[in-house]
Amino acid sequence: MSESLNQKMNVLGTNARKAAQILALMPADRKSAALTAMAKHIRLSASDIINANQTDIIGANHKGLSPAMIDRLKLDKNRVEAIAGSLESIAQMDDPVGLVEKTWKQPNGLKFSKVKIPIGVIGMIYESRPNVTADAGALCLKSGNACILRGGSESILSNKAIHAALIAGLKETDLPETAIQLIPTTDRAAVGLLLGGLENTVDMIIPRGGKGLIARVQSDARVPVLAHLEGLCHSYVHTDADQTMAREIVLNAKMRRTGVCGSTETLLVDKSIAAEFLPKTTKSLNELGCEMRGDTPSQNICGEVVKPASDQDYYTEHLAPIINIKVVENLKAAIDHINSHGSGHTDSILTQDQDAADQFQRAVDSAIVMHNASTQFADGGEFGFGAEIGISTGRLHARGPVGAEHLTTFKYLVHGTGQIRPS
Amino acid sequence: MSESLNQKMNVLGTNARKAAQILALMPADRKSAALTAMAKHIRLSASDIINANQTDIIGANHKGLSPAMIDRLKLDKNRVEAIAGSLESIAQMDDPVGLVEKTWKQPNGLKFSKVKIPIGVIGMIYESRPNVTADAGALCLKSGNACILRGGSESILSNKAIHAALIAGLKETDLPETAIQLIPTTDRAAVGLLLGGLENTVDMIIPRGGKGLIARVQSDARVPVLAHLEGLCHSYVHTDADQTMAREIVLNAKMRRTGVCGSTETLLVDKSIAAEFLPKTTKSLNELGCEMRGDTPSQNICGEVVKPASDQDYYTEHLAPIINIKVVENLKAAIDHINSHGSGHTDSILTQDQDAADQFQRAVDSAIVMHNASTQFADGGEFGFGAEIGISTGRLHARGPVGAEHLTTFKYLVHGTGQIRPS
Repeated sequence: MSESLNQKMNVLGTNARKAAQILALMPADRKSAALTAMAKHIRLSASDIINANQTDIIGANHKGLSPAMIDRLKLDKNRVEAIAGSLESIAQMDDPVGLVEKTWKQPNGLKFSKVKIPIGVIGMIYESRPNVTADAGALCLKSGNACILRGGSESILSNKAIHAALIAGLKETDLPETAIQLIPTTDRAAVGLLLGGLENTVDMIIPRGGKGLIARVQSDARVPVLAHLEGLCHSYVHTDADQTMAREIVLNAKMRRTGVCGSTETLLVDKSIAAEFLPKTTKSLNELGCEMRGDTPSQNICGEVVKPASDQDYYTEHLAPIINIKVVENLKAAIDHINSHGSGHTDSILTQDQDAADQFQRAVDSAIVMHNASTQFADGGEFGFGAEIGISTGRLHARGPVGAEHLTTFKYLVHGTGQIRPS
Repeated sequence: MSESLNQKMNVLGTNARKAAQILALMPADRKSAALTAMAKHIRLSASDIINANQTDIIGANHKGLSPAMIDRLKLDKNRVEAIAGSLESIAQMDDPVGLVEKTWKQPNGLKFSKVKIPIGVIGMIYESRPNVTADAGALCLKSGNACILRGGSESILSNKAIHAALIAGLKETDLPETAIQLIPTTDRAAVGLLLGGLENTVDMIIPRGGKGLIARVQSDARVPVLAHLEGLCHSYVHTDADQTMAREIVLNAKMRRTGVCGSTETLLVDKSIAAEFLPKTTKSLNELGCEMRGDTPSQNICGEVVKPASDQDYYTEHLAPIINIKVVENLKAAIDHINSHGSGHTDSILTQDQDAADQFQRAVDSAIVMHNASTQFADGGEFGFGAEIGISTGRLHARGPVGAEHLTTFKYLVHGTGQIRPS
């Protein structure tokens, strides 16, 4: 690795740290004004952005990227407008910084308050979708954090064009330009340096991309990582389900989009209603082009439309039109299956029995536990968080969809009147 | 490392994971009953515990441990009673698990709630003080977490005796005995295995001890670490301070106990009042046996009672009766000095000017920022958290004193009435 790359990256870190100190104290209206100006400059630069993107796409075709990857990379007028719209909606959200979470008083008269503050400097490492440049930059700014962005090499020109518009917005509103920095090189060594923390200037890394990227980040990072691993989600049809509702939810939970982390991978059906529920449901799934892999009881009920499932299937996030089916003895068996096979992401019970729902929601150890709703609602927008920077599957700090309010930490303010501590 | 140690440690991990699943759903009153029974058994075993401790102390003397270390290791009747009392006060605290932090509704009718849940399995690595065995075990139990404890080799017999009393309390109240496990060997390889996460059964590591221990844990852990690094705390005497109050607070902040993380290491004094404030204060500090290291202005004011400070002194956590003194230009200079030299632990402003206090509390980037109070209040008990498992100097998840309520994470419950997500 060249000494000069090392030096350049450390300068990014030092700049980000300085910007973070300024952003931490920036009033909410000035951050909103900057976000609004950024939206304006995205629109003004639309043709520059689309031109840059077309060059990226030519390069991606040369490299032989898959059509799915190229679709994710592609920007057109509508997608650029969506980027601007997202910036404006983030501008309008409540500012999380300074929010007093709690106040209390001790018998000696000391008053305590717990106040939300920014985390500091966030390193964001992502692939393909260029809109992440704007979303991540905007969510970090909203929450008072400086960020260092590292997009994929396939989208470098698109990212640079978007970044230039963000900077124009920062400049116009007198915010530090170094609030949102983009690593300008595609040198992979830069990622290693970012993961190393750039001389203790980076407080958290958020990776967003394929499993290879996440694995590398988790193994190499020397700073905390907020990562999304797997979404192995379950829908459980309880004995007291409204079966029409349950069927509609299951079809949506699996088939609305099969490539998203909130899509259901395994359908659990209570033994007592399996013979009634499964035939119609598997027929509909089959018509929608969904492959089904089930246990012996479900095959006995549905016939050869359900192929035999392997043990491994129940541990697999298919991210494809494939669903595992399993007939379970009862509520407890469903909970046990989910807690032993799931990824702690999102699981749903479909039932009209409130007690069963309560028990399920208490006992299933996942970030999101639903009742009578589609697992596809696992999304920051659907939670009302505005845009999301990603979904966290770790257990600590932030879980589930991560919006601006989750990019904060806190400090305690203690207000005294001269108290000294007795020995 | 022996294959058998590896296997034994993995069994601890598996047991802890199973216990954690049970503890997560345990009603508050049953956890309190167990903690109360544990206190009873500590009292019943007092002579066993003290006998075991005496053997540890003989060993520690043979090994040549310092008198300070031996004092921390030592248990007598009063200290054993304090352990039992601490268990009882944890029993009486509010249970954090199940607390609803927030509820909201989306336009499509989905209702969301954010609920506190246990983290899971906590690995605790600590040195000397045997009371940590009871405090850590009790705080983990209170918060619904299973724990695996690894005390120092010098206190192994004391820890085992205390642990036996905890287990007796768990047994008597029908809680899983594996809720609180103690690693029974002093083999150092066991620590490495625990830091490796025991096949993904450990969710978080909390180290408590000297800098060597913390450094090893932070470099080797493959799971998140909640650690205490340094407490380089400042007291800043502002131009509008009540000087009598400020003097009393500074003497307490430095000298109440010099070896604790919340003790003030650096006194910053505003230029405008330095000539008035410093002479009396340094006289008192001198009488209390405190060494003073200051900049030229403070030496000019106080004479040779203040020795010259090196640059390094202002970056040093003395943990001793030594204080750095610096005369600063104004509030801004004080804030800048703290943010560039401090450790983000605890800092205090002493002033009668509310605006200056607000500005200081907003701008100082530390976990605890005080106004007109001694930095020695940086302690879980003083915050009203009951016992503390440690103090976190990281920026994420938990900061400052860590009590039972901070040993939790959360999950989202989503309540629907059949919602499916539109494409």
